[in-house]
Amino acid sequence: MFFHRQELQFKATPDQPDAVYARKLQEVLGGQYGEITVAMQYMFQGWNMHLPGKYRDLVFGIGAEEFGHVEMLATMIAQLLEKAPLGVTEDAVQDDPTVAAVVGGMDIQHAIVAGAGARPVDSQGNPWQGSYITGSGNLLADFTANANAEMQGRIQVARLYHMTDDSGVRDLLSFLLARDTMHQNMWAAAAKELQEEGYEQMPTPSNFPQSNEYREVSYQYLNFSDGEAASKGSWASGPTPDGKGEFSYHDGPTTTAPMPPPTRPDARMYGTSDVPNPVEKAAGTVQDKLNKE
Amino acid sequence: MFFHRQELQFKATPDQPDAVYARKLQEVLGGQYGEITVAMQYMFQGWNMHLPGKYRDLVFGIGAEEFGHVEMLATMIAQLLEKAPLGVTEDAVQDDPTVAAVVGGMDIQHAIVAGAGARPVDSQGNPWQGSYITGSGNLLADFTANANAEMQGRIQVARLYHMTDDSGVRDLLSFLLARDTMHQNMWAAAAKELQEEGYEQMPTPSNFPQSNEYREVSYQYLNFSDGEAASKGSWASGPTPDGKGEFSYHDGPTTTAPMPPPTRPDARMYGTSDVPNPVEKAAGTVQDKLNKE
Amino acid sequence: MFFHRQELQFKATPDQPDAVYARKLQEVLGGQYGEITVAMQYMFQGWNMHLPGKYRDLVFGIGAEEFGHVEMLATMIAQLLEKAPLGVTEDAVQDDPTVAAVVGGMDIQHAIVAGAGARPVDSQGNPWQGSYITGSGNLLADFTANANAEMQGRIQVARLYHMTDDSGVRDLLSFLLARDTMHQNMWAAAAKELQEEGYEQMPTPSNFPQSNEYREVSYQYLNFSDGEAASKGSWASGPTPDGKGEFSYHDGPTTTAPMPPPTRPDARMYGTSDVPNPVEKAAGTVQDKLNKE
Amino acid sequence: MFFHRQELQFKATPDQPDAVYARKLQEVLGGQYGEITVAMQYMFQGWNMHLPGKYRDLVFGIGAEEFGHVEMLATMIAQLLEKAPLGVTEDAVQDDPTVAAVVGGMDIQHAIVAGAGARPVDSQGNPWQGSYITGSGNLLADFTANANAEMQGRIQVARLYHMTDDSGVRDLLSFLLARDTMHQNMWAAAAKELQEEGYEQMPTPSNFPQSNEYREVSYQYLNFSDGEAASKGSWASGPTPDGKGEFSYHDGPTTTAPMPPPTRPDARMYGTSDVPNPVEKAAGTVQDKLNKE
Amino acid sequence: MFFHRQELQFKATPDQPDAVYARKLQEVLGGQYGEITVAMQYMFQGWNMHLPGKYRDLVFGIGAEEFGHVEMLATMIAQLLEKAPLGVTEDAVQDDPTVAAVVGGMDIQHAIVAGAGARPVDSQGNPWQGSYITGSGNLLADFTANANAEMQGRIQVARLYHMTDDSGVRDLLSFLLARDTMHQNMWAAAAKELQEEGYEQMPTPSNFPQSNEYREVSYQYLNFSDGEAASKGSWASGPTPDGKGEFSYHDGPTTTAPMPPPTRPDARMYGTSDVPNPVEKAAGTVQDKLNKE
Amino acid sequence: MFFHRQELQFKATPDQPDAVYARKLQEVLGGQYGEITVAMQYMFQGWNMHLPGKYRDLVFGIGAEEFGHVEMLATMIAQLLEKAPLGVTEDAVQDDPTVAAVVGGMDIQHAIVAGAGARPVDSQGNPWQGSYITGSGNLLADFTANANAEMQGRIQVARLYHMTDDSGVRDLLSFLLARDTMHQNMWAAAAKELQEEGYEQMPTPSNFPQSNEYREVSYQYLNFSDGEAASKGSWASGPTPDGKGEFSYHDGPTTTAPMPPPTRPDARMYGTSDVPNPVEKAAGTVQDKLNKE
Repeated sequence: MFFHRQELQFKATPDQPDAVYARKLQEVLGGQYGEITVAMQYMFQGWNMHLPGKYRDLVFGIGAEEFGHVEMLATMIAQLLEKAPLGVTEDAVQDDPTVAAVVGGMDIQHAIVAGAGARPVDSQGNPWQGSYITGSGNLLADFTANANAEMQGRIQVARLYHMTDDSGVRDLLSFLLARDTMHQNMWAAAAKELQEEGYEQMPTPSNFPQSNEYREVSYQYLNFSDGEAASKGSWASGPTPDGKGEFSYHDGPTTTAPMPPPTRPDARMYGTSDVPNPVEKAAGTVQDKLNKE
Repeated sequence: MFFHRQELQFKATPDQPDAVYARKLQEVLGGQYGEITVAMQYMFQGWNMHLPGKYRDLVFGIGAEEFGHVEMLATMIAQLLEKAPLGVTEDAVQDDPTVAAVVGGMDIQHAIVAGAGARPVDSQGNPWQGSYITGSGNLLADFTANANAEMQGRIQVARLYHMTDDSGVRDLLSFLLARDTMHQNMWAAAAKELQEEGYEQMPTPSNFPQSNEYREVSYQYLNFSDGEAASKGSWASGPTPDGKGEFSYHDGPTTTAPMPPPTRPDARMYGTSDVPNPVEKAAGTVQDKLNKE
Repeated sequence: MFFHRQELQFKATPDQPDAVYARKLQEVLGGQYGEITVAMQYMFQGWNMHLPGKYRDLVFGIGAEEFGHVEMLATMIAQLLEKAPLGVTEDAVQDDPTVAAVVGGMDIQHAIVAGAGARPVDSQGNPWQGSYITGSGNLLADFTANANAEMQGRIQVARLYHMTDDSGVRDLLSFLLARDTMHQNMWAAAAKELQEEGYEQMPTPSNFPQSNEYREVSYQYLNFSDGEAASKGSWASGPTPDGKGEFSYHDGPTTTAPMPPPTRPDARMYGTSDVPNPVEKAAGTVQDKLNKE
Repeated sequence: MFFHRQELQFKATPDQPDAVYARKLQEVLGGQYGEITVAMQYMFQGWNMHLPGKYRDLVFGIGAEEFGHVEMLATMIAQLLEKAPLGVTEDAVQDDPTVAAVVGGMDIQHAIVAGAGARPVDSQGNPWQGSYITGSGNLLADFTANANAEMQGRIQVARLYHMTDDSGVRDLLSFLLARDTMHQNMWAAAAKELQEEGYEQMPTPSNFPQSNEYREVSYQYLNFSDGEAASKGSWASGPTPDGKGEFSYHDGPTTTAPMPPPTRPDARMYGTSDVPNPVEKAAGTVQDKLNKE
Repeated sequence: MFFHRQELQFKATPDQPDAVYARKLQEVLGGQYGEITVAMQYMFQGWNMHLPGKYRDLVFGIGAEEFGHVEMLATMIAQLLEKAPLGVTEDAVQDDPTVAAVVGGMDIQHAIVAGAGARPVDSQGNPWQGSYITGSGNLLADFTANANAEMQGRIQVARLYHMTDDSGVRDLLSFLLARDTMHQNMWAAAAKELQEEGYEQMPTPSNFPQSNEYREVSYQYLNFSDGEAASKGSWASGPTPDGKGEFSYHDGPTTTAPMPPPTRPDARMYGTSDVPNPVEKAAGTVQDKLNKE
Repeated sequence: MFFHRQELQFKATPDQPDAVYARKLQEVLGGQYGEITVAMQYMFQGWNMHLPGKYRDLVFGIGAEEFGHVEMLATMIAQLLEKAPLGVTEDAVQDDPTVAAVVGGMDIQHAIVAGAGARPVDSQGNPWQGSYITGSGNLLADFTANANAEMQGRIQVARLYHMTDDSGVRDLLSFLLARDTMHQNMWAAAAKELQEEGYEQMPTPSNFPQSNEYREVSYQYLNFSDGEAASKGSWASGPTPDGKGEFSYHDGPTTTAPMPPPTRPDARMYGTSDVPNPVEKAAGTVQDKLNKE
């Protein structure tokens, strides 16, 4: 169950409205790596978790915080939109370049659809979607996904920080940046602990027996481009991070197989077959069959 | 530039067709973490990269390999569909539970739309989409995204391994599993090397000055759920992975702020305002204005 | 069957082109609550209707009108785009702020994709989609959906009215506003008549026996936020609109249940299980099994 | 802010797993009218609301409850999936029609992607998306949208009730049905109160002056289909629900206008113009211009 | 304007219900090449057309027919669903393989969402979307798109013909097949006439001066794969269809250019730059700047 | 397999950055008819082809080239973004209309999400999706789709040519225009050769026996709009392009059928039935049934 308290975790009030910036801020609310994504991702990981205790408490504990971040951003966006113009475009374009630029740069659905309100979309107006989240049930993979989400999120907030000099907005962003710092560290710590406790290790999923994989190529770097510098990386020689092999470098594939011949499905699929002039023949065959029906 | 060779990296021929399994295999071709995703993700990272040399060669070298994996899966799926039924449902349902189950379980667009061919969709028929890929320009974040993609991908292939006992299909999967093992290790090695060489570090982006974040909460675990076990994790006390702080545990928020008052945008947004009986008043105002126009 | 007449229901010619406004007008053509939505929604309700007579004639009679509204808006948009600029951005930006603002504010696909034509998208370029429509087969629910669609639509048109002072555009909008007024009233009247005639009533679906619902909570207001003002509303005490109960107000849930223990699916799902060090054990088990295969 | 409690509002445990039913239940979790939709819809309405007090407390109070419903359904689905098969399709198809039917009927991504876990998708695997929600800032319209959402939701749950005889599942559905009964009544009461208090009335938005609409057609029923029964409805004669007019019935449009002539945009849009042989001429013109550049 | 007549263009009644086939038939109603696509595509082409007369009358004349095809398919699907089961899955699976197969093979949203009604989706449940249609304003390109749409559509209907032996369904499909035959011929004839009348020719757009293209490669076949058989095609030598050149065959590219060096955007984009240890330096710079603010 | 060479097929360097134009150029990279579409379309056609030899070599040979075009555009876009502003909107709006126009006109995700990099989206930010591609297995239909794609693509590039005067960008576009000229001609030649060799002919699919279609309407032009000019086209009289019939012109349908009566599905679908006062009766029935359970 979720309980809502009509307070925010941090002050979320801009010095002044800015409809163009409101659109930009939508990215970290409803974008691929926005707060809706992490809130939903952590909660679904919790509901599907097979391992009780601290890891489940962790995703629940942070997931609920993230819903509060969604709220802070939505509240901020609504205030940034408080003076969003609903005026005549032509006038603006001719009379006032400032208003014209606002009209050009704002999310026009903020006005037409939401009446100066926040929306569950990204900065280009793409609706948030369920396919943004990741939850495989395998915690090492999922914590890596979580770490990535917090990294991408912090980068986006850092960029947004420089797109405004509104101190109220910057205050909120400085808070979100700090929480992203925490969450990046947290998922890194959790992934490490998970491996130390033996629940999971690389390559994930570790309880799939590697004897079932084609081991000859398990630690080969195969170069399909013509740059040679990749041979100098730590992924081209030396021990592998999973502690189970040695990297080797190869220019191009070490295996090949002929491409199988074209398939020949049921003639009634009406594809183009490899028989010259198949039209009459196939038609004949089908026709005969059909005439009998 | 890309050059295509009409050979496969590995044998991709099933022992026999299986239209139901063909649908399942679409997941790792055109799903969120399928081969199209990693191929496109690595290539876009390469085209956008600001750092020349081994890291760029790396994403190009592996990205091109992944397009070959797309090809192996598409080729395999086409062969699995070679005997896909196009018969009468009712007959099947009544006469042959086997065919009925095939009809129920297959991707029906494989027959109706593609004529027994592979498609750029996942196992539920959702088209692959550009929003699956990640490329921020920040390599530590992106390599973490890549590691996650290879983890999720290997888990999915491992699950698919047990959904068939066709030795031809399993051979291909054993090859893909091995390559995923390599790629997981590779991205882990690359992320480590990137930090050791000083290009990037946690928290990402590291060249955003932490003095601009609200440091009081940068290393606090804030528990917004009522489970207490998370306090026992390595993320609740001790040094942080970025080496810059100490974790601390807190039950609930350490900061709060009142929710700001409702916004009052332009009356012509026609939202519901906080004035009792605003209808006549606002209408009057607007009417006056409009009558003058 | 549908028959098309090359006339419009109302004049749809702007005083002059305005490419920026053309983009805005797309919202009520191809948006969530645009004319395509209501046209398709009413027609699908008609095709699926189980009740012949006046209600079916109603959805068919109005649905066909709405396709004509799609046409008026598309025609208007094409004319608003007649002078859409295809010039050089850089020049515009430096030489003419007016053109620059137009370039920034218009739907660029109007030029690149449609060659100065209307498109089935909303004002942000999101394509119209079938999931916008509602048709459950239950007419009280669907007429409520229809009333909502006409309300949202009229609000959006009202906002758009103030974004232009082109009298040709405003004339068309004044016509659409009037029809939305009619349609709001019409669906309200139809929903009322449907209940008076005994076809349906609240709670919908009324022929699902309420004895099958958990009646203790059927009329309880449960407050999951900490604002107390909701206790003063007509939904917190007094008779319920369906005439079958009395509202009561409760702070928080009146029922609770423990969260069930984590699930433990087949080990070959490769999730993280609750067994410490499951890696070797599970692998062993599966390995044994697999080795025998 | 949101606080999570590791308890459920109601028991959510099935008598036994049922992977096919799990897929069906996804509809009311992540579908157009599933619990994610109402939870997000009410919260966004709250964050964007311009009217403080009981109405805002109402959407916050219920919105938070709905997130708890998301949780109950996700938890239930995870348990229904506990025995989801990951076996070999061919075996199933041939050996056991029961398993074959399960394989055909389940959401295969439940196994491949989520490892026997719930997902933010509908029963056909379409990801939940932000465009499902409605929030215009106009409360009469939005409360009508909310009433519709609760009606559609209760109908879907009622249908799902008959698709299982698992008493654990039915218990949860009986609880959700009861809450939908409450919420239908609640939004009906709130919409009525809103109008009685003079905040809003029909036609919405009421503070747009009707003098700006084309009043001749504001209360006309225009029949664009050839069924005549609609003339007998309460929408064809008598007073209108908004109390401001009288319905009248008309067969076909009462207004018409000629279709405007085709547009002639910039020749460099490269559309087909109405000049015979425009190719050379236009090319010439453009060529001349370009040659000079 | 559109007028609806409550008659169908052709009989659309199945011999008996078949819920599994109903799902398949959705493909040609709401799929990429279903009837909604062609109806909307032709109408939008008409509304955006710059050339009055026979070509515009053509797209309007056929577009309206296609809306009637949407209606026939929706009506047929509703009847095919008349006995759609809403029973208990478990029972079905165990007691009756026929019902189990139906449950597995049907579009479950037909029951849960639409109450045994048609929906604007394809056979996999993907909602129809506006991005399926094509309308560039250039008629030769658009008529080619139309010809393709009718070809793809007829192929799909032909496949569906063999998936049922219901004579009522087959009657409707035989009618749609005949109309697709007409429409394929019609667009071919129209494309030919358009060129003969000099409105447009290949390469499209013909009024873009070819002197602006890089003519050296305008008629070269460049082979980027290693199959050599393409050299034997009519596209590898001889005159080109546009009558303006001669095809020539080349193995690989005839031009190349070095890849440009990596870009170096503003440091505050926080990408990874090519400066070793940029962290402190860049941070310093930004920090200085920020400290002054 | 694919091999990548770190060279481009043609120079892809702009004279100078232009972030607004970068957004526009996204259309031909990641739009409906962008280079990703044709690259993927040709490759999938190859993987699914049933006819070996020159046609398969053709799609592979050109498909691989198209991936190189994706690369050239992505590389160009990254360079156009090199100076993309990340500054303060408010300042820009007030101080510098040029920067303001750039901020308004650019794809803001280029900065926030990709850090000045290209993305797999169109010019409005819609992600590329798998449903853009066409591959039916029938080569005449698919080559027609390919010809259309190259026509639409060349039109879009021609429009983009006039939106910049950057000679570096224009050089690249002039190269792409030339290749589109080749590819239009190539698909036209291939479609002609395919028919001459008897593999396929109109109406497609030609091996579906026309005796199964309702031949009376196979060559009738049926006019569902009221324009009469279409009767003058070559599609209204004379021989048909497939050489099998004679066109005839008819005003309106030549066949009609009554609309079937409404369906009456299972009462537990909870739709509105045609029985007055069905509520109590149906409820009773169901209730009785349910009470016994």
